[in-house]
Amino acid sequence: MGDCRHEKPETLYRFFDPQSIAVIGSLREGVFGGYVVVKSLIKSGYEGRIFPVNPGYTEVHGLKAYKSINEIAHPVDLAIIMTNARAVPSLLTECAEESIRAVVVVSDGFAERDMEGAMLQNEIARIARYKGIRILGPNTAGVASSGNGFNPCPYEAGYYSLKKGPLAICSQTGMTNPQAYPYHSFSFGTSKICDFGNKCDVDECDMLEYLGADDETGVVSMYLEGIADGERFLEVSRRVTSRKPVLILKSGRTQKGARASESHTGSLAVDDRVFDSVCRQAGILRLDLWSEIFEVPKIFAVQPLPKGNRLAIVSYTGGVGVLAIDKADAYGLGVADLTPETAGMLHAIFPGLGKIPVDIGPAATAMTGFLDMYPRILGLVLADPNVDSLFNVLWADPTGRSVGIYLRAYEQLKGEIKKPLASWIYGPDPSIVSDLKGRLEGLGFPVFGSPETAVRALGMAYSYASYISFR
Amino acid sequence: MGDCRHEKPETLYRFFDPQSIAVIGSLREGVFGGYVVVKSLIKSGYEGRIFPVNPGYTEVHGLKAYKSINEIAHPVDLAIIMTNARAVPSLLTECAEESIRAVVVVSDGFAERDMEGAMLQNEIARIARYKGIRILGPNTAGVASSGNGFNPCPYEAGYYSLKKGPLAICSQTGMTNPQAYPYHSFSFGTSKICDFGNKCDVDECDMLEYLGADDETGVVSMYLEGIADGERFLEVSRRVTSRKPVLILKSGRTQKGARASESHTGSLAVDDRVFDSVCRQAGILRLDLWSEIFEVPKIFAVQPLPKGNRLAIVSYTGGVGVLAIDKADAYGLGVADLTPETAGMLHAIFPGLGKIPVDIGPAATAMTGFLDMYPRILGLVLADPNVDSLFNVLWADPTGRSVGIYLRAYEQLKGEIKKPLASWIYGPDPSIVSDLKGRLEGLGFPVFGSPETAVRALGMAYSYASYISFR
Repeated sequence: MGDCRHEKPETLYRFFDPQSIAVIGSLREGVFGGYVVVKSLIKSGYEGRIFPVNPGYTEVHGLKAYKSINEIAHPVDLAIIMTNARAVPSLLTECAEESIRAVVVVSDGFAERDMEGAMLQNEIARIARYKGIRILGPNTAGVASSGNGFNPCPYEAGYYSLKKGPLAICSQTGMTNPQAYPYHSFSFGTSKICDFGNKCDVDECDMLEYLGADDETGVVSMYLEGIADGERFLEVSRRVTSRKPVLILKSGRTQKGARASESHTGSLAVDDRVFDSVCRQAGILRLDLWSEIFEVPKIFAVQPLPKGNRLAIVSYTGGVGVLAIDKADAYGLGVADLTPETAGMLHAIFPGLGKIPVDIGPAATAMTGFLDMYPRILGLVLADPNVDSLFNVLWADPTGRSVGIYLRAYEQLKGEIKKPLASWIYGPDPSIVSDLKGRLEGLGFPVFGSPETAVRALGMAYSYASYISFR
Repeated sequence: MGDCRHEKPETLYRFFDPQSIAVIGSLREGVFGGYVVVKSLIKSGYEGRIFPVNPGYTEVHGLKAYKSINEIAHPVDLAIIMTNARAVPSLLTECAEESIRAVVVVSDGFAERDMEGAMLQNEIARIARYKGIRILGPNTAGVASSGNGFNPCPYEAGYYSLKKGPLAICSQTGMTNPQAYPYHSFSFGTSKICDFGNKCDVDECDMLEYLGADDETGVVSMYLEGIADGERFLEVSRRVTSRKPVLILKSGRTQKGARASESHTGSLAVDDRVFDSVCRQAGILRLDLWSEIFEVPKIFAVQPLPKGNRLAIVSYTGGVGVLAIDKADAYGLGVADLTPETAGMLHAIFPGLGKIPVDIGPAATAMTGFLDMYPRILGLVLADPNVDSLFNVLWADPTGRSVGIYLRAYEQLKGEIKKPLASWIYGPDPSIVSDLKGRLEGLGFPVFGSPETAVRALGMAYSYASYISFR
């Protein structure tokens, strides 16, 4: 793809931190298009200049609309194009004339559509290369950045602000952009969001370089359908994983999936075994389920890395404790053997308590006020030198009485704890479960959507910790 | 375990449809115990007689409390015991004297605790056998039945009524009982719920026999830690699966998990490969994740079985369409090739629409009013003779504008459709997603918690359909 591909990754800053932006395309009211982009920018608190461009309008959302790009008498850092695909080549040329160096092409109808679209895509890539423009897309839902309130979402997403946080999330689909996922309830916050679309220019390697150097980003989660350049990918990701964890969900594992990804974003498929081996060499953590893209990074957001693979389990219910042990084995963790001292102290609190899984249920139902000892039990298990990480299963009783006890226990652990703690909450009242989840996450302790994901996240934290220490 | 084990399964009716019940144990106010059982029964609309038994009380919830079982001058169908474990043997003898033939032993401290507990468990099993009593438990959260509003839940669950429906759910843990799962938001309803606990008498085979013959039950979902009798299990489950699907999640897949299950419910482990082979021979569908116990049965609740394995995918987002194709392959489904006629009609609606995944996104953003054609698109895909089942991915836009369109489409399909349809909804506003889910499920179309589970459920529907037709 020529020279500008290898420009320093820092040049991608224009996509995430432009001082001014041109929004080119339909300004008609609706759930998609330039009208939504401008409103998204205003509502998210973007402080740069916004230049809507559409010959049919004089203003939108109180902003002057321009007939064409060259009418804007002000430097423009980034353009977002949402016109018919056939109009894109000439618009790119106009952008170049106005020294716009970064363009997000939201328009679809390119390589993902048909042969004609593929030729059009080649044409815009050629123009970009020749004119020194970086393109994100085409066929993309674009970017967002929480640090500066920059959220030019082209789909109506509810116009909410992104919470600042360490997670960068990139995807070869719009499914990780703000219109698709409730980021307002994602406690740990995001740094940057990006949809690669058809990747005619900016690709996963560029983004990894950029995010690797980005101080706001502590963990990178990606969905990919293909890799542009295997060798470069290995080289770049090795560098990035030495500084922060990188998690990837890749589709096209099967032949049919691979063919479908070709027609979705025009991606060339990679043999899955080759990709797997690249991930192992580069210390990339490979995900398996869609929800894991959002869930697994939470363990890296604020929790320390484990020093070993010995998992302890505390559970209000023995059944899920047993299931967790099965999964621990599958995800590379071993089950901790409590020291005789810890076991003894737990048995003294209630007979049978001093073994993994530490089954809270029987004692909680048998002893009045037993839950008052909950902070002490969690503390004892975490302090055990034979324990490297903890999975805790909580019952949110529908009266909400236990919420305060759980909060007190986690508050006591905060600051003291040097081992990762993953939690899962169950109960008959979804609103109490969700409220407790929000509060525990507010204290910095991730709560997962399923017991299996919690254990998997701890397994990945251990995988990453060992990769880092052995490389 | 002797003769009463092989009594007709119909005798289990006492556990689910007792005309009168004795509640033996603590009546102290709290989130667990006899106090809660009695309140659960009253609130759930139980119409039989309730006899609380505790020498320290004269009344509870307006009901007379009895000093002992023999003071009750009325036949009792079922007793629920929640006392200290050591008191259970003599209480069983008293039950026998009063001709009580079915007892739920909620008390813990038996084989799951220690050697002494294991001996106590042998003792109560011996008494039961000798006296002709069936025991559920010990160490169980008991039973519930929606048909007669019989919900003697010993943990506070919010005192809600169970909706009637075809799903029977049994478990070797209390985690499927009403205090652990929000059944009030389970659209398709349950028939019977049962926690086997330590299975000293009533076991999975007894329950399978009973549920196989139960007209209210259309599908059985189970969590097991071990099998009491492999040969009988194979024989019974073959008979039951010929009438209704049986889904099982079994823990103890790994050695460590197996050891943990021993100490949780005192279960003897079964070699996982042996169990797998039994499942294949018996047409049992084997689950892998905790949430699947509740989710996968939904495809069997009201949807027809597929005639073949050719899966069509309609999606608002191409990315999840590609992922679904990967998973289809893993779960035994093939991707449908639309007939040229269907493809042609779809391409005529919007270029590129006539292939799997049918990607709605580009057209929906490009054409005003495109979603008006949504019912027609779903109808065309489902009517295609090359299509056996459909996975549909919906975007719940945060304005809620699309909700009406989706509802109209599904309403049109209702009654007409003879192929299973599984859906997944995503979007930035969890309350709109959850509202749409409730409405679609209200029409009889299951909506799954993840795209992978939706495809897995369709894969299992196909597995079951082929098992039935080839046996």
